[in-house]
Amino acid sequence: MSKMREEILQQPVALDKTLRLELRRIEKLKKILQANPPQLILLAARGTSDNAATFGRYLLEITTGIPVSLAAPSIFTLYGAKFSFKQTLVVAISQSGESTDTNLVLQRAREAGARTVGITNEPQSTLAQLAEHCFLVRAGREQSVAATKTYTGQLMMLYLLAYALGAKIQIEQLRRVPEWAERALKLEPEIRERAGRYCFMRHGVVVGRGLNYANVYEFALKLMETCYVVAERFSSADFLHGPIAMVETAFPVFLFAPPGVTWPSTKEIREKLLQLRADTLMITDQSNPEALAADRRQVIEVPAKLAARAPLPADLFTPIPYIIPAQLFAASLAEEKGLNPDQPRTLSKVTRTL
Amino acid sequence: MSKMREEILQQPVALDKTLRLELRRIEKLKKILQANPPQLILLAARGTSDNAATFGRYLLEITTGIPVSLAAPSIFTLYGAKFSFKQTLVVAISQSGESTDTNLVLQRAREAGARTVGITNEPQSTLAQLAEHCFLVRAGREQSVAATKTYTGQLMMLYLLAYALGAKIQIEQLRRVPEWAERALKLEPEIRERAGRYCFMRHGVVVGRGLNYANVYEFALKLMETCYVVAERFSSADFLHGPIAMVETAFPVFLFAPPGVTWPSTKEIREKLLQLRADTLMITDQSNPEALAADRRQVIEVPAKLAARAPLPADLFTPIPYIIPAQLFAASLAEEKGLNPDQPRTLSKVTRTL
Repeated sequence: MSKMREEILQQPVALDKTLRLELRRIEKLKKILQANPPQLILLAARGTSDNAATFGRYLLEITTGIPVSLAAPSIFTLYGAKFSFKQTLVVAISQSGESTDTNLVLQRAREAGARTVGITNEPQSTLAQLAEHCFLVRAGREQSVAATKTYTGQLMMLYLLAYALGAKIQIEQLRRVPEWAERALKLEPEIRERAGRYCFMRHGVVVGRGLNYANVYEFALKLMETCYVVAERFSSADFLHGPIAMVETAFPVFLFAPPGVTWPSTKEIREKLLQLRADTLMITDQSNPEALAADRRQVIEVPAKLAARAPLPADLFTPIPYIIPAQLFAASLAEEKGLNPDQPRTLSKVTRTL
Repeated sequence: MSKMREEILQQPVALDKTLRLELRRIEKLKKILQANPPQLILLAARGTSDNAATFGRYLLEITTGIPVSLAAPSIFTLYGAKFSFKQTLVVAISQSGESTDTNLVLQRAREAGARTVGITNEPQSTLAQLAEHCFLVRAGREQSVAATKTYTGQLMMLYLLAYALGAKIQIEQLRRVPEWAERALKLEPEIRERAGRYCFMRHGVVVGRGLNYANVYEFALKLMETCYVVAERFSSADFLHGPIAMVETAFPVFLFAPPGVTWPSTKEIREKLLQLRADTLMITDQSNPEALAADRRQVIEVPAKLAARAPLPADLFTPIPYIIPAQLFAASLAEEKGLNPDQPRTLSKVTRTL
């Protein structure tokens, strides 16, 4: 079994451990932030962690109303821009904690008076030393170059951060996430079988929106780095503003199709894609009956009812269970193509850029 | 001649007109903003205008130090998040002024107390009515579905907005931009000839960084919508964090290679791509001698010296002259492939999404 597949399977345990072991310090942070809430949140990350940051952007803006900006590190590291950072919370996310540019953003921000949070797997890392508050993704060392368990672990930490910032998410709800991850893993044999059909896919598109937009980037990244598929990624809305012109008969499009506010636009785009005779595959769950009514060969159904109850957005807890079939798909497709997903050509585990 | 090509050729005139006719009202806005500077800028746009917004993000953060966030419209339009918008300047950019979601973001923000700016081609549009301050891109009506002159016009307006926000950009410097655009247009016959070589390209990657990162998205979008090429887009840094694994012999990669702080990383990535035997093409100008020293078949040289003098970033004025050869390339490649760049399949000029 590839390390990637092993690490995909470790996710329920890693999620549970992250939640349990970090909760006490999150409660402390909650008190500090309640006394003096930030007016702006800046998220800094690269690669898979940057995809987690994209999730954080949607999650934090939707559940706390605090504006969030995804840092463009070069503005600090290359152009040397000076920011005030007044009332700003800067959050750096890095699996290794050794991402040079991410760390530099955090350091500059802290020197300029920002409050800083680090999210990393490595308690001894530079990031862990630099951040005022450091939280650990308890996933154990990640050996595959393709990140999986650290991504979902980072998502869990971001739910906890939203909670610390006053979001109406209950810890009891988060405790269900490891079980949902476990259920998503039950799809393994089905997905292994399905992957064969995509063996000769050279390019494709992943589409999704809102809280699952980050998953779009993460699924595409897995397809690029482990399967060498040229995988584009778009929000459903942006896809209609131009790129849909690429789609021709049998063009592969993968869609995240959660219940809730994004479903009408996902449904609309899927209908348009069917008219264009594209080859579509939707990831959904048991709480979106309209998606389940589609041709079953075009649906991956996570065997759980994931919809959250109002006033929470229905799709709030779908991102972790939805990325798991996508990870399994990439791992299976790599094997199908005779590639080793743990050692993609050209890459190494820690990438240093400025 | 395609409308797209006609409109590409109109850019020097449109840029000059936009600068001249909007300057007085920009001076007024400058006084208002100086009296009460914003602490956060939120940019809202879709499609090509969203690429212009990405440029605005880098430009404004680099030259003013005010944090900028690119709005994710669904957070307002679908999830209905409530923001405070205190001390926030919200800028909506839309060629038609009829982009439903962009307008809704602006409207909500204005109701919640934000100051608002609109940038559009259409003085009678909904956006022009909604925004407190509206500025017009004086490019005349754009008839091709593929936006060109409105993109560079929007970039010009963003330079003016940076000026209004206190950036050390002199209007005299901006007056040179139409001439640089004119010079870039001189590349037309050369690019028409080069395009033939790419006739059978089905996918590729566009790479760049910093102030030219927006051009990466815009070039890729033109390749997708007019040539149906599956064109990925990455910052040079993100490309190294995974996607470079896709690159194999003869894999086409287009790079924006301005002088200044981003050049060392662009150079490094190009060297890595040459080792991987990728097929590279760089867009640069006469002020980057190291880029010009490369194999000339791999270089498009804008015939002008574009480097700005310190303390301005050297690449400050490269984005408009650099996107022009990319636009010409897409228009030529579409013709080479027997496609009509003015009427991409599946698309219409105004796209409404929520």
